[in-house]
Amino acid sequence: MDFVKGHGTENDFLVLPDDDGRIDLAPATVSALCDRRRGLGADGVLRVARAGALVAAGVLTPGLPDGVGEHDWFMDYRNADGSVAEMCGNGVRVFAHYLCASGREERDAFVVGTRAGGRAVTMVGARDFAAQARVSVEMGPVTGFGESSVNLGGAGGMRLPGLAVDVGNPHLVSVVTGLDDAGLAALDIASVPAFDAALFPDGVNVEVVTPLRGGAVAMRVHERGVGETRSCGTGTVAAAFAALRAEDRSAGTVEVAVPGGAVTVTVGTDGRAVLEGPSVLVASGTVDDRWWRYAASAAWPVAARRVGAGAA
Amino acid sequence: MDFVKGHGTENDFLVLPDDDGRIDLAPATVSALCDRRRGLGADGVLRVARAGALVAAGVLTPGLPDGVGEHDWFMDYRNADGSVAEMCGNGVRVFAHYLCASGREERDAFVVGTRAGGRAVTMVGARDFAAQARVSVEMGPVTGFGESSVNLGGAGGMRLPGLAVDVGNPHLVSVVTGLDDAGLAALDIASVPAFDAALFPDGVNVEVVTPLRGGAVAMRVHERGVGETRSCGTGTVAAAFAALRAEDRSAGTVEVAVPGGAVTVTVGTDGRAVLEGPSVLVASGTVDDRWWRYAASAAWPVAARRVGAGAA
Repeated sequence: MDFVKGHGTENDFLVLPDDDGRIDLAPATVSALCDRRRGLGADGVLRVARAGALVAAGVLTPGLPDGVGEHDWFMDYRNADGSVAEMCGNGVRVFAHYLCASGREERDAFVVGTRAGGRAVTMVGARDFAAQARVSVEMGPVTGFGESSVNLGGAGGMRLPGLAVDVGNPHLVSVVTGLDDAGLAALDIASVPAFDAALFPDGVNVEVVTPLRGGAVAMRVHERGVGETRSCGTGTVAAAFAALRAEDRSAGTVEVAVPGGAVTVTVGTDGRAVLEGPSVLVASGTVDDRWWRYAASAAWPVAARRVGAGAA
Repeated sequence: MDFVKGHGTENDFLVLPDDDGRIDLAPATVSALCDRRRGLGADGVLRVARAGALVAAGVLTPGLPDGVGEHDWFMDYRNADGSVAEMCGNGVRVFAHYLCASGREERDAFVVGTRAGGRAVTMVGARDFAAQARVSVEMGPVTGFGESSVNLGGAGGMRLPGLAVDVGNPHLVSVVTGLDDAGLAALDIASVPAFDAALFPDGVNVEVVTPLRGGAVAMRVHERGVGETRSCGTGTVAAAFAALRAEDRSAGTVEVAVPGGAVTVTVGTDGRAVLEGPSVLVASGTVDDRWWRYAASAAWPVAARRVGAGAA
């Protein structure tokens, strides 16, 4: 089992080349690989396969998503807990970078298949990018769907007004007047924010954002079901949209700084967004076959016997 | 730059084969490799070299430590922040396992050089251990040096009596009467414990331990300068010593469960300890040369620009 480890704004992934869709990516296998101390460690797994092969293997059902051809490369994304996710804005940059660095893709602009549909990606700048690349990704439509508010830091925390934003998944973005980088750093964003469950029946990702200044904002994000993360691709799109809206603009380009780095979001006059950002490929290698069998065996959960809460 | 990733009771390491001591292991390089999202990620690096080669390269000064021959394999251990450490009880198991799995060592019992001196290690059980091994390591003398107490959970926390134990480094072990696994799990061990600075001028590692029962104890550990960890080799030795002492015994064998697994500690009638535990090798590979240069370049800290506290 070969792998490449890479990251986009510190959202890190194990890329698993599996062109013909032959690997059995059971949830337990994915979570073992992603375990940061017992496995290789990552936020998720990106299996690389031809879309048609995944349909034939029964992984992609009921068939090809919109805008995905059977010969397109498909990003079969799994979260660290083994669950399937539709799309990952940071992962798709690393995925596209890997396709080019491995020689699978020689074009500078191509479509990457995802469960959310085909995504147009463009490699930005020179092609001499084995370790680093800059990739731009079509993120689809971004729309506001109402005003709301969010309570940070638990019951006694701070109530912030915010904008509900749909980027294929739901966001609540609070652009806080007068907030600077030091104030942003001081926020408690680890606690689960309290929000309007009627407006967000499936939960919500919460972004706190500094006002637009010199074309840039800074943000922190609490991802639903995860907690604070170093970066969230759709969150940066929502943040840029809301920061522009706060200036009465519906389109424009915004540099968004996140804890894991910086990306550039362009919201077009057509209401569609493009996310451009870095990708870094760190290392490549092989997972030991016997470890692989060990991870899939009954010994794995036994060895995981825990004493106390332990460190994360 | 080749690597192998492995762990001992979830204390995880990057093993870097460098038989002739040629790699420049600058602190910035080590910390970049150990960065869990921007690099490969680990608690530390174990460079594999002949002891004599490291002396010749000026890495090992002023010369060979006690009990280490120039042809012995030397574990050049670095913490994740790039600093040098003398010895690591979990690391030496992974190191010895790697020597055997890679064909560098064909004996079942041999000496591993460390900055704390030569350590006798024995591979336990069958040699068919590519992914998993069980390794026993001579840990040297363990001695008590006084009664003390420690305050857990900050100023308002719980005061526990404890035994000061020297295993080459200082420990304060509290064997808590009546404590069971659930009680152990409920403790706050994340806060920095308050201890007697006169007794422990260089700080102290703190272990909280259940009483000896059926030859076994469970413990959690707060390592000085680090916080709670999933395992601490010398800490398990100190815990076994104190648990035996609490039963008025000075020697014996104790199974010690830690958050990352379980090890077996034997304290001999000569006051010396042997630590036996698991090692797992997960994967092997190559760090991208261009990533290597990127990590060593001025771009690395710039890309690490942080917004807010971020997630760990």
